[in-house]
Amino acid sequence: MSEKTAVSPTRQEDFPEWYQQVIRAADLAENSEVRGCMVIKPWGYALWERMQAVLDGMFKATGHRNAYFPLFIPLSYLEKEAAHVEGFAKECAVVTHHRLEAKDGKLVPSGQLSEPLIVRPTSETIIGAAYARWVKSWRDLPILLNQWANVVRWEMRPRLFLRTAEFLWQEGHTAHETSEEAVTETMKMLRVYETFARDYLAIPVITGEKSESERFPGAVQTYCIEAMVQDRKAIQAGTSHFLGQNFSKASGIQFQSRSGAVEHAWTTSWGVSTRLIGTLIMAHGDDDGLILPPRVAPAHVVIIPITPKEDTRAAVLEAADNLAAQLREISYHGVPVQVEIDSRDLGGGVKNWEWIKKGIPIRIEIGPRDLAQGTVALSRRDRPHKEKAFLPNGDVLSGVTGILDEIQAELLARATAFRDENLKVIESKEDFYKFFTPANSDKPEIHGGFALAHWNGSAAVEEQIKNDLKVTIRCIPFTDSPEAGTCIFTGEPSKQRVVWAKSY
Amino acid sequence: MSEKTAVSPTRQEDFPEWYQQVIRAADLAENSEVRGCMVIKPWGYALWERMQAVLDGMFKATGHRNAYFPLFIPLSYLEKEAAHVEGFAKECAVVTHHRLEAKDGKLVPSGQLSEPLIVRPTSETIIGAAYARWVKSWRDLPILLNQWANVVRWEMRPRLFLRTAEFLWQEGHTAHETSEEAVTETMKMLRVYETFARDYLAIPVITGEKSESERFPGAVQTYCIEAMVQDRKAIQAGTSHFLGQNFSKASGIQFQSRSGAVEHAWTTSWGVSTRLIGTLIMAHGDDDGLILPPRVAPAHVVIIPITPKEDTRAAVLEAADNLAAQLREISYHGVPVQVEIDSRDLGGGVKNWEWIKKGIPIRIEIGPRDLAQGTVALSRRDRPHKEKAFLPNGDVLSGVTGILDEIQAELLARATAFRDENLKVIESKEDFYKFFTPANSDKPEIHGGFALAHWNGSAAVEEQIKNDLKVTIRCIPFTDSPEAGTCIFTGEPSKQRVVWAKSY
Ligand SMILES: [Zn+2]
Ligand SMILES: [Zn+2]
Repeated sequence: MSEKTAVSPTRQEDFPEWYQQVIRAADLAENSEVRGCMVIKPWGYALWERMQAVLDGMFKATGHRNAYFPLFIPLSYLEKEAAHVEGFAKECAVVTHHRLEAKDGKLVPSGQLSEPLIVRPTSETIIGAAYARWVKSWRDLPILLNQWANVVRWEMRPRLFLRTAEFLWQEGHTAHETSEEAVTETMKMLRVYETFARDYLAIPVITGEKSESERFPGAVQTYCIEAMVQDRKAIQAGTSHFLGQNFSKASGIQFQSRSGAVEHAWTTSWGVSTRLIGTLIMAHGDDDGLILPPRVAPAHVVIIPITPKEDTRAAVLEAADNLAAQLREISYHGVPVQVEIDSRDLGGGVKNWEWIKKGIPIRIEIGPRDLAQGTVALSRRDRPHKEKAFLPNGDVLSGVTGILDEIQAELLARATAFRDENLKVIESKEDFYKFFTPANSDKPEIHGGFALAHWNGSAAVEEQIKNDLKVTIRCIPFTDSPEAGTCIFTGEPSKQRVVWAKSY
Repeated sequence: MSEKTAVSPTRQEDFPEWYQQVIRAADLAENSEVRGCMVIKPWGYALWERMQAVLDGMFKATGHRNAYFPLFIPLSYLEKEAAHVEGFAKECAVVTHHRLEAKDGKLVPSGQLSEPLIVRPTSETIIGAAYARWVKSWRDLPILLNQWANVVRWEMRPRLFLRTAEFLWQEGHTAHETSEEAVTETMKMLRVYETFARDYLAIPVITGEKSESERFPGAVQTYCIEAMVQDRKAIQAGTSHFLGQNFSKASGIQFQSRSGAVEHAWTTSWGVSTRLIGTLIMAHGDDDGLILPPRVAPAHVVIIPITPKEDTRAAVLEAADNLAAQLREISYHGVPVQVEIDSRDLGGGVKNWEWIKKGIPIRIEIGPRDLAQGTVALSRRDRPHKEKAFLPNGDVLSGVTGILDEIQAELLARATAFRDENLKVIESKEDFYKFFTPANSDKPEIHGGFALAHWNGSAAVEEQIKNDLKVTIRCIPFTDSPEAGTCIFTGEPSKQRVVWAKSY
């Protein structure tokens, strides 16, 4: 029953520690000696590159182009938007000097800057300054840009991928002639993220608006995609902000309108980051390691040649090469099937387990016996690790994209079922507190989920719930027919149920 | 004769200023208000993305994978390699605080770090620390990684693309079991850069080794590709360093060798940056703006619909769309032909000039008359701007990749002829000084070139020449049969001629 798993502890035993161990087992990333800054290792970075390629295509298909803006933001820029600086001042890296000088045999900072520079935590203000230079007339609008960049937020309790001092992301920044256009853009990009999460990451996110207290500093409205992961907590996996005229007023993005009046532009910003990798791990991984959705997997198939005897070795390796070459000719949703051949001089079991832990969708073993029979042994990462299908070579070639699609669909189905099981309508404060209180308070077991409960709209209530339970409103979900009711905390009127959860 | 050019001043009138004006005319980049940091605009960034895509493919084809390492380097890491810190201490951004605090109504840096962090000027030391963790045995070698990243070097006299405080680059970092392997890697990547410059940028670089005084801080040997641009100066466009065991000793990258002894790894690093964009501009641009080699152009063809009358407008636009769709079906060296349609409500002349300045290889005008005749007017950026070929639609489709290849070849041929014309063997100190002395010292005209001259190997001579003429040894060129001779400065023996030039 309880056979040994490749990752220890299991999810049930200690979910946060399981997460760290999956990252290690799959060789995705590690902490560096620089506090909060991670090293993203090749397998983790290749996963990010796949996500980037897909998202970049979606951004370009919706009319955006890429550009690049400075890493450093003058302190005075950050100060221009009051809520913004308030939100980021407490956790930013500050550059104060521009050289090092020997002093008493030690190197010390020297060449003090007249104005400190902030390493960008986000780029609204520095990009706003550029847009202010570029925009003169309504004819210059809209501006639809994105940048792929690193950003820094000085996190006090870093966690690989989910919360790191430096992380990689994309930030879209757009400026528009009208409020309506900017709102449309905000929603369009939220839908891009939702689609990406569902169709590529196999994660059925919940979309909605953030409450005021969870808004991006300086935004008028913040929309988000929220994923439920396997300990039933939420992860904010992407956000899209309608910034109104807050930043255009702060940065001076003005234009002559069609009527000849001088107006401020309406801006948006939207981003996803390497946090998506953490979300993917927690959404799909199992006690044997990572499970990669095929549509973002850096590789789809690993071929493991089994070469027990020297005299058949060359023939087995050649068969592996041939199969790989044929697979690579096949297109999977516009990308060639990506194949690894693991011909390292290690036992088949060791290699097999490495690839299980790395989450590769399909493993294929070829040995001398298979060679004679023209078959291979195929295993799928979404099935028990001992399960093997013995297939003729030809069936592998004709079936590979179908199998990949099945795995992709299976992961989405599992994640959807899990989310639906753990999304509860809650009608009383008592039930709410019970829902979010673990049986074991010292070492909380997996508990809770997403609670759909009525709320009166008060930030004081949010504050209380956060203090009592570490639970926050994840979003006010979009709904065509909001059902009014009574706030379960205050008895006051509520416009609709909102989504509450513990979160990363 | 001297008709007005699109860019003013011309190259002859003022080359450095012409360069700035081409960047502006082509809308590639601009200075930000952060000293030395540039904003890379969409057309410039798209060019960088094309370069990245090609180089990334070449790196992967030579066995490298991408990864990502921290932006920040602890001061103590930098200090581990003496020559290295000496080389970078004078021009680095230093992070000393991790938050801002209100004080007397002003925000000031707060939360002082116990150890200052340096924004990476290059990553040998931070990557070395990771390799030291990863490498235990000879079986862990080689490590062949690359990262795409931003780096910061506090430049005192910044110039867009060529020398900016922040720039984008790739840095390859490899670790090997033997010195021979590391040297082979160093040379292999230099050849990748040389090939990329020739076959994609259409720039015939000179390859060789740097003299000791021009070596990368901490390297045993630095190899480079040097481009000659149109004012006959040199640009170091890429470098590949054999680092020996200097950094592995500094970082502690040790392994148990095949014989069981503990040894230090042999490392290399190699990089190219957004400097390549500056090199490309200066190598190929003319007095009408940028000229893009088709193999790195973000777009190959622009279609400019000419719609003088309302009643033919729809038909012309439809023809433009159809032609674009058909062109996009064509593959140019593995990439679909990239087509822009400029249907903005502006005059044909204005649009035509914009695309000339942006350097797009092919411009196609379609007007009502063309429609009737089934022809288009095609202009090439490598030919005089008034030259148009009137071609049947079908010829455009069958001929487009051939024309692009012709333009690519023409640019390389021009740059090669120019370089060869301005590469002189110089046999005396007097001729050398004459070669590098402009007639007009107040406002130097284009002069000089690459001088091939004998040198005794002395750094003192280099120093003198640099002080007198601002001329340096660009490289000790590779040659199968070095011809010994006499140093033209000292009369002492010289092993071979070396390449001298003024440089950016
Ligand atoms: Zn099992
Ligand atoms: Zn002319």
